[in-house]
Amino acid sequence: MIKPLADRIVVKPAEAEQKTSSGLFIPDNAKEKPMQGKVVAVGPGRKNDKGEVVAMEVKVGDVVLYGKYSGTEVTVDGENFLIVKESDVIATL
Amino acid sequence: MIKPLADRIVVKPAEAEQKTSSGLFIPDNAKEKPMQGKVVAVGPGRKNDKGEVVAMEVKVGDVVLYGKYSGTEVTVDGENFLIVKESDVIATL
Amino acid sequence: MIKPLADRIVVKPAEAEQKTSSGLFIPDNAKEKPMQGKVVAVGPGRKNDKGEVVAMEVKVGDVVLYGKYSGTEVTVDGENFLIVKESDVIATL
Amino acid sequence: MIKPLADRIVVKPAEAEQKTSSGLFIPDNAKEKPMQGKVVAVGPGRKNDKGEVVAMEVKVGDVVLYGKYSGTEVTVDGENFLIVKESDVIATL
Amino acid sequence: MIKPLADRIVVKPAEAEQKTSSGLFIPDNAKEKPMQGKVVAVGPGRKNDKGEVVAMEVKVGDVVLYGKYSGTEVTVDGENFLIVKESDVIATL
Amino acid sequence: MIKPLADRIVVKPAEAEQKTSSGLFIPDNAKEKPMQGKVVAVGPGRKNDKGEVVAMEVKVGDVVLYGKYSGTEVTVDGENFLIVKESDVIATL
Amino acid sequence: MIKPLADRIVVKPAEAEQKTSSGLFIPDNAKEKPMQGKVVAVGPGRKNDKGEVVAMEVKVGDVVLYGKYSGTEVTVDGENFLIVKESDVIATL
Repeated sequence: MIKPLADRIVVKPAEAEQKTSSGLFIPDNAKEKPMQGKVVAVGPGRKNDKGEVVAMEVKVGDVVLYGKYSGTEVTVDGENFLIVKESDVIATL
Repeated sequence: MIKPLADRIVVKPAEAEQKTSSGLFIPDNAKEKPMQGKVVAVGPGRKNDKGEVVAMEVKVGDVVLYGKYSGTEVTVDGENFLIVKESDVIATL
Repeated sequence: MIKPLADRIVVKPAEAEQKTSSGLFIPDNAKEKPMQGKVVAVGPGRKNDKGEVVAMEVKVGDVVLYGKYSGTEVTVDGENFLIVKESDVIATL
Repeated sequence: MIKPLADRIVVKPAEAEQKTSSGLFIPDNAKEKPMQGKVVAVGPGRKNDKGEVVAMEVKVGDVVLYGKYSGTEVTVDGENFLIVKESDVIATL
Repeated sequence: MIKPLADRIVVKPAEAEQKTSSGLFIPDNAKEKPMQGKVVAVGPGRKNDKGEVVAMEVKVGDVVLYGKYSGTEVTVDGENFLIVKESDVIATL
Repeated sequence: MIKPLADRIVVKPAEAEQKTSSGLFIPDNAKEKPMQGKVVAVGPGRKNDKGEVVAMEVKVGDVVLYGKYSGTEVTVDGENFLIVKESDVIATL
Repeated sequence: MIKPLADRIVVKPAEAEQKTSSGLFIPDNAKEKPMQGKVVAVGPGRKNDKGEVVAMEVKVGDVVLYGKYSGTEVTVDGENFLIVKESDVIATL
């Protein structure tokens, strides 16, 4: 399994079909449009300047909104995931 | 419901009609023009370097002014919202 | 009334006519030229990294100089105001 | 042997063949695509502003994902290695 | 009178004639060339992150050198002044 | 002799011939390629915000790898040296 | 005399002739080439965020190397000087 470092989280992005049929979807104007997905793994948290770990707000199972161009895509056993920093998470649902 | 993370807030933008008929509206010159809306949800506050939460100034129900190009739009059950950082809020009315 | 957030202030800009007839006016060379106005509202002050409020230097009634391109214009009941950060205020008169 | 300084690590990149036959591989769309490799050496950790060493999360033997354009390549006795900063490591497997 | 905010100072620039006849003048090569003037007002000093005022080094009456493109020009009762940050002052004479 | 300031070090770059015949050499692809050399002098260390000196990791006699475009070249008595910051040193051998 | 502010120093640049005949001169390749000169005045030191002065490493009489494009030239009584920040001084000889 993927273990994200520091303040990164692993997200299973929602399917495109699922998004248009659900209550939340992305509007059609020019502003940055967030994506949504389910958190499947959470890093231990970033270390501050003293080397102390700062606890994460997001937890496994949360449905999160994040910027369209955030993060890094990886594929494990044919399944796509996205690794984003917690600071790129806009909100939970 | 949308729960914003850190120092983000969820705003219900004022209707365009309502803005021109009300006392406050946007002047027509070249400067950046703020928008207004009502705060419907408030994040817990950003964490400082020590990991301590810094309390929010803005609260649910406040009418806020924010930059025209601030934030991220989301739609829940056909209703538009904007998620902005508290630092993008210029003033309350 | 407009309540500015953090270290922002609300300024009533001086009329253009009033500026040329008064003692202080703007010279005609290529350097950045400041504008002047009267402070009508003052925010509580920015929060430092610990979340403590840092007190403002400027107070209501001060006549301030600020950069020509600073701030955000708003109109309330047909009257124009400018919202600037205290750090954009160059001097008081 | 190469001893990385501060918060750098030495990685033995995975072979390209090995990557396509394994469970994890890199998807074909436009997002930044991470690479993987095995950690063969770890620096002592960065020093914070007080001069204290902040311990490393990654350890020798970890399989790490890192950005495609991260780090500096070196060759020792005909063998290629990559030296990256720990902050460029996205996740371990 | 002009009261500069934070770590700003008000300078009365030296006349161009006075500069070429005095001991100190500006050389003719391509490097940035400093200007000189007399300090007529000094701000209270910048506030550090804790909100404590950091005392100024420059005082009223000092003759200062500053970068050619530093500061903001203002005119009071027909007299030109320059408002610069103390960090833009290179030296005193 | 050259005494480097703060966290700078003086390096005697390895000869180009010596590099291709030794075990370590620079690969031929597009990534940034490090150079190697021997440390002949080490500064006292940078001062942190409190003015305390932060001790150096590198010491005289170390063979170091550094970025191809790092540092400043100087020539003393016909001999070439390179002065680099310790943070530009990638690893020791 | 010129009194540099904060962490600035006043340097009397070495003559061009003197440089080519002395042991140290500037090599002819494309890298940034340092200049040398003698320190004739030293500022009190920069103030840290607390307002405490951080002592200078360089002292009057030191022969210093500095970047070719560092600092500001001034002329006093027909004599050229250079004012540079201590952080632009690479080494002493």
